[in-house]
Amino acid sequence: MNFTYSEKVEYLQKEIQDFMERYVYPNEQTYKEQLNNQGGRFSSIPPIMEELKKKAREKGLWNLFLPESDLGSGLTNLEYAPLCEIMGRSAIAPEVFNCNAPDTGNMEVLVRYGSEEHKKRWLKPLLEGEIRSAFCMTEPDIASSDATNIQADIREDGNEYIINGRKWWSSGAGDPRCEILIFMGKTNPDAPKHEQQSIILVPMNTPGIQVERMLPVFGYDDAPHGHAEITFENVRVPKENILLGEGKGFAIAQGRLGPGRIHHCMRTIGAAERALEILCERVDSRVTFGKTLAEQGVIQEWIADSRIEIEQARLLVLKAADMMDKVGNKVAKKEIAMIKVVAPNIALKVLDRAIQALGAAGVSEDFPLANSFAGIRTLRLADGPDEVHRRSIARLELKEQRTKRKQEVL
Amino acid sequence: MNFTYSEKVEYLQKEIQDFMERYVYPNEQTYKEQLNNQGGRFSSIPPIMEELKKKAREKGLWNLFLPESDLGSGLTNLEYAPLCEIMGRSAIAPEVFNCNAPDTGNMEVLVRYGSEEHKKRWLKPLLEGEIRSAFCMTEPDIASSDATNIQADIREDGNEYIINGRKWWSSGAGDPRCEILIFMGKTNPDAPKHEQQSIILVPMNTPGIQVERMLPVFGYDDAPHGHAEITFENVRVPKENILLGEGKGFAIAQGRLGPGRIHHCMRTIGAAERALEILCERVDSRVTFGKTLAEQGVIQEWIADSRIEIEQARLLVLKAADMMDKVGNKVAKKEIAMIKVVAPNIALKVLDRAIQALGAAGVSEDFPLANSFAGIRTLRLADGPDEVHRRSIARLELKEQRTKRKQEVL
Amino acid sequence: MNFTYSEKVEYLQKEIQDFMERYVYPNEQTYKEQLNNQGGRFSSIPPIMEELKKKAREKGLWNLFLPESDLGSGLTNLEYAPLCEIMGRSAIAPEVFNCNAPDTGNMEVLVRYGSEEHKKRWLKPLLEGEIRSAFCMTEPDIASSDATNIQADIREDGNEYIINGRKWWSSGAGDPRCEILIFMGKTNPDAPKHEQQSIILVPMNTPGIQVERMLPVFGYDDAPHGHAEITFENVRVPKENILLGEGKGFAIAQGRLGPGRIHHCMRTIGAAERALEILCERVDSRVTFGKTLAEQGVIQEWIADSRIEIEQARLLVLKAADMMDKVGNKVAKKEIAMIKVVAPNIALKVLDRAIQALGAAGVSEDFPLANSFAGIRTLRLADGPDEVHRRSIARLELKEQRTKRKQEVL
Amino acid sequence: MNFTYSEKVEYLQKEIQDFMERYVYPNEQTYKEQLNNQGGRFSSIPPIMEELKKKAREKGLWNLFLPESDLGSGLTNLEYAPLCEIMGRSAIAPEVFNCNAPDTGNMEVLVRYGSEEHKKRWLKPLLEGEIRSAFCMTEPDIASSDATNIQADIREDGNEYIINGRKWWSSGAGDPRCEILIFMGKTNPDAPKHEQQSIILVPMNTPGIQVERMLPVFGYDDAPHGHAEITFENVRVPKENILLGEGKGFAIAQGRLGPGRIHHCMRTIGAAERALEILCERVDSRVTFGKTLAEQGVIQEWIADSRIEIEQARLLVLKAADMMDKVGNKVAKKEIAMIKVVAPNIALKVLDRAIQALGAAGVSEDFPLANSFAGIRTLRLADGPDEVHRRSIARLELKEQRTKRKQEVL
Repeated sequence: MNFTYSEKVEYLQKEIQDFMERYVYPNEQTYKEQLNNQGGRFSSIPPIMEELKKKAREKGLWNLFLPESDLGSGLTNLEYAPLCEIMGRSAIAPEVFNCNAPDTGNMEVLVRYGSEEHKKRWLKPLLEGEIRSAFCMTEPDIASSDATNIQADIREDGNEYIINGRKWWSSGAGDPRCEILIFMGKTNPDAPKHEQQSIILVPMNTPGIQVERMLPVFGYDDAPHGHAEITFENVRVPKENILLGEGKGFAIAQGRLGPGRIHHCMRTIGAAERALEILCERVDSRVTFGKTLAEQGVIQEWIADSRIEIEQARLLVLKAADMMDKVGNKVAKKEIAMIKVVAPNIALKVLDRAIQALGAAGVSEDFPLANSFAGIRTLRLADGPDEVHRRSIARLELKEQRTKRKQEVL
Repeated sequence: MNFTYSEKVEYLQKEIQDFMERYVYPNEQTYKEQLNNQGGRFSSIPPIMEELKKKAREKGLWNLFLPESDLGSGLTNLEYAPLCEIMGRSAIAPEVFNCNAPDTGNMEVLVRYGSEEHKKRWLKPLLEGEIRSAFCMTEPDIASSDATNIQADIREDGNEYIINGRKWWSSGAGDPRCEILIFMGKTNPDAPKHEQQSIILVPMNTPGIQVERMLPVFGYDDAPHGHAEITFENVRVPKENILLGEGKGFAIAQGRLGPGRIHHCMRTIGAAERALEILCERVDSRVTFGKTLAEQGVIQEWIADSRIEIEQARLLVLKAADMMDKVGNKVAKKEIAMIKVVAPNIALKVLDRAIQALGAAGVSEDFPLANSFAGIRTLRLADGPDEVHRRSIARLELKEQRTKRKQEVL
Repeated sequence: MNFTYSEKVEYLQKEIQDFMERYVYPNEQTYKEQLNNQGGRFSSIPPIMEELKKKAREKGLWNLFLPESDLGSGLTNLEYAPLCEIMGRSAIAPEVFNCNAPDTGNMEVLVRYGSEEHKKRWLKPLLEGEIRSAFCMTEPDIASSDATNIQADIREDGNEYIINGRKWWSSGAGDPRCEILIFMGKTNPDAPKHEQQSIILVPMNTPGIQVERMLPVFGYDDAPHGHAEITFENVRVPKENILLGEGKGFAIAQGRLGPGRIHHCMRTIGAAERALEILCERVDSRVTFGKTLAEQGVIQEWIADSRIEIEQARLLVLKAADMMDKVGNKVAKKEIAMIKVVAPNIALKVLDRAIQALGAAGVSEDFPLANSFAGIRTLRLADGPDEVHRRSIARLELKEQRTKRKQEVL
Repeated sequence: MNFTYSEKVEYLQKEIQDFMERYVYPNEQTYKEQLNNQGGRFSSIPPIMEELKKKAREKGLWNLFLPESDLGSGLTNLEYAPLCEIMGRSAIAPEVFNCNAPDTGNMEVLVRYGSEEHKKRWLKPLLEGEIRSAFCMTEPDIASSDATNIQADIREDGNEYIINGRKWWSSGAGDPRCEILIFMGKTNPDAPKHEQQSIILVPMNTPGIQVERMLPVFGYDDAPHGHAEITFENVRVPKENILLGEGKGFAIAQGRLGPGRIHHCMRTIGAAERALEILCERVDSRVTFGKTLAEQGVIQEWIADSRIEIEQARLLVLKAADMMDKVGNKVAKKEIAMIKVVAPNIALKVLDRAIQALGAAGVSEDFPLANSFAGIRTLRLADGPDEVHRRSIARLELKEQRTKRKQEVL
């Protein structure tokens, strides 16, 4: 047990912080302006992004995720967590370091389950930051929080699979560079409940794919990546595009979602930390009823509670990451579920307090608070809603307690 | 003490409900489409709005606010509350009945404090629904929650006042029909704290007025009304445009905000009620883990808590309205402050549960939930943040308790 | 709709308040001392109680509950509510006015379902305040929150019923004056679920009844009434002691619990109100960090939230009472369930804040706060735990919403 | 950074767990019975306690606190934390291992600031478990949460100090073995605010000391240790009994409270963990509405939230302990304040859920829940109320943020 970061981590934290202060924060507004002034919001990528990516790569701050693979930079989850947190402070930062969702999760899938051909065609350019990807799981017509409800149809036909279905909230699919979809559907509706689903790789330009609309999140379109509603009508892909084989979809999804979830949580801690900073800076300068806001008890309570909540959530992220490194994602399932509930919920509290402390400025575009709130509110639904994670935690807990009681009896 | 609505109110509730079902709900989408397809979002008003207004007026469902004035329809606050609640169920409804913010509050100001000339020029067309108005109070550079901080300058110059300053969150000022601004600024920085401010009428087309930008709320622009940031540079208006005289601004603002606040609360109850309806309908149809969501304990708890919170908030709105009718807005100050804290906070809880129950659909444009959340979140800041109202309530409570203790001693 | 108390109610409020100030509050300590100094805590009743009862009866402040019966004082539930609230301010007050639990609920049962003989033998002396009673429902070995779990056995045997079982939390059974138990058990385990139970009158001195122990609530014994664990071994009572007939137990219990629940809620509001008074008085006199506690923002927030919560809960009690009067206890079921959840929960919040504001004094015997907390915490379990009431509310709400949706379709 | 306990800690955890299961839990009831059956509750110590202490000492499980002193067992705070947690699972356990409050805190004071004579006379027998001690700080007439309010008078008189004042909540002073009081009072009311107080050792049997009463906590007397209200009337002690010299009281108190606070928090985690175990066991066996409570969504949510809250609080305790070891109690001040707020608050939530899940059994003496609740509720007031700790955290946070902002500007 030891709560000090290693020297390696402290060095990288400093590197990334410096990079953020020098290159990222000052260009957040540039990015926004380039996005607004290019033709359409989903038609191209603000040029500043490619410049920043180049810089980050030159500094070796690139693909810092990917533990257990020599394609990454050799960091463990525990080492990556505090770095990912810093990236989470800015909406544009994760992509700058090629550590953004859903690409990191998708790359992890390709590393683990992709064939050599898949890796060459999609993993390599993803790792290079040349193309982007999306994960197509959620469907509009069913409660997708129970993944066994998934209805999209994947049917064998000679050397191909034919895909039919409607997906939405395929995040990143609006990106003009998005070339590959990781698609979940049913190959065998008659198999046991958790073996009906398969995951298959679908190139974005396959005929039959139609992006119907980009979905807004609390009024934000999250361009240029966006959240797409997509119809698949007789979309044909070669048989070898299926990952691991028919019926393995559920297992792969669970594997994919572990790292994906914890990355989200790490970034969320960073967003909360930035919100608290914004709050603290503001309350030092504004005065009501004869005192700065910083001197007022209610505001002080917000600050104390925010610091307490962030600190605890960070420790839980780190512990979950440490467990993933030591005992594997599967055994760390309960801890991952716990942090997936905690991180967005406390971040929303901190953001809400920051918004309240800033007054109307807080809900505007002048600060990242409202946008951050919208994204993190959505995270309480994405990758499993709070309620499904709480259910898992409780069932694991009850099981462990039963085992313990039995042992005591013996 | 009696908790049954009068026959008159029940009749009007039914009338408005019928109108909503027949004309308003089915046209919400039409309104959105017309808004998107006209040139710019702030350049004109979707034609369906004028059609609906005409219909509402024909049915006598027009200007239902305005107690104590023969210009309204003779309803008390207590009678108006349950009707206003129904209007609050749809973002476009209040304007249909000419009962929308900030025009109702502004009309109340003109009724009470406007000269005959003011009434003829601005009140009459407002009551006819021909022009719109805005209230310019909040400023970007100070904590406007303490109104004594207001910095905008109103200086006498011969027969005119010259106005300089920067205002933001002037809601409704984006509306192409907006013709009159009710403006708060300082006429005398050396007067006692609550007599420095004045309120003055400023026609929108006066030279020196510049709308700098329309502010988004979360990602919503709330077009075509919008929230404007406006600079006033040597804006000249005739001396008679000042209301009640120099130094009366604070008193007028307090008077204006009483009814304005409670109207917001009434509408907010309606928005919460609609969210609960949407939730209940959805959970009856979606299935996870072998049961409809409606059968699951956690969801049932959300429904029960929502019903409890809405019911209590409605009772408090009604009580506050009854007090406004019986003892006046000033004596009802504590009750108004109480409901101003309660209504948005419980509505946000209900909306949050509805969003969670709907999954990602809840944050999209397919349901009014996220948009409603953004607006009501902002209401926790508008017309005084929660904290300022809580402070008032506590100080009034402490004062009452002191009086009571003294009486007991005697 | 009208939020003003009637003149009659205002008169009675004043009468009871005066009585409380003159006779009850000054004797709370006397009661405690007499209780501590008599031989055992469950062996006799502090003499001051009988003196106070006599005084209350002389002033006509007696049996104010009992709407719809000429044995009471002719008050409706709506009229009784604000009076019962005042009584709830002191732990000893309800009995002074012969309006204490569980006797009021038990008297209601006897009024409705008792035979002339039952009334003569038990109702009359209860109304006179001469004897006391208990309600025996909860059992230690099953989850009593689902009343169909009740296991106690009531078996016919000639002209008698033989009763066997173990009950606990039979409140009031420790009182030396307790002469009658209203007992719930199963007469027919094979009948439909809600027709297996019966309710039968069991005189306290019947052979086979054994009080095993008095249960503490937190560390309080609530002497001299107390909460008893009682075994019944072959206890024989005449057949005519059964109320309404075999299988009617569930229905009677539901009927009994409606008024019982709302009385508890009324009193709970009073306890919360007194806690807020104590808090307000204390914070005016204590100083930390250079200011009175009353001037500190966090304390002001507690006061404001307490006032808001009490006010809303009171309105909901009053509305539920009004519905009981107008449409009957059965139709008012949802409102009764709502207030049963709300009242104890908000009172606990107010009490918790008061305790926190008082510091360690708050958990001691020097103030009624901790004792009140313990009792009201238990109310979240008694007469149905929160969760069962929330479940009922949700199911009623879902049903109403379904009906409404169907009507809209037509 | 590393979240695995060391082998040494794991070994000791197992040793203490075994001891608890073999000797402590089975004797909790014995202790209670011996206490009830001896003459008075404050007159002697249940004999089982001395037997258990002997056993613990034999096994080397004795004085495990006391880092940085060769009088202890050489454990760091980080090593002690998980052991102290286990002791916190039972109300009688801490004393068994001679690790109970307030003696541990008092022993730390004597180790650091006591003279050789003090150590010989009081520290040695405390370490042997032969005598007990109390800390006299809180006073009834002032808000003791602001320690500068302390009024007790310590006046020099020749070779002695004369002490006058009234203290309450002197925990442990009811213990018949209590021989030494660590007393805080004012030696110089005219000195700077934080140098007016001194701490002085007062033998319990000094003339002029009068225990006025033992204060109950939610009805519990916490015998035989108890919480005393004590008057000091012209109590004379030798001058050398003052610790560190006049005016050092505030500094010593701060130093004492750091370890004292974190020990309380460690134990509180253990109490919460035990409550969750009791909850989990119970919900597996009770059935309502056709399902075990364990299968019901609302109960599962309680379990999940409890596990999440406990896990996070434990991590924060451990981190604070690690900081105390590495950078000292003073630099770890913010972390200690954070855990002092968190631990009791989450434990109360867990306890409240356990009580609710158990029904009325939860508030009785059949389970340790209500008693634990009362003690931990009081911990939100003891050693600084939540609000004072939140205030410290916020002020430290604001200060750090200001420093950071300045550095960024440079």
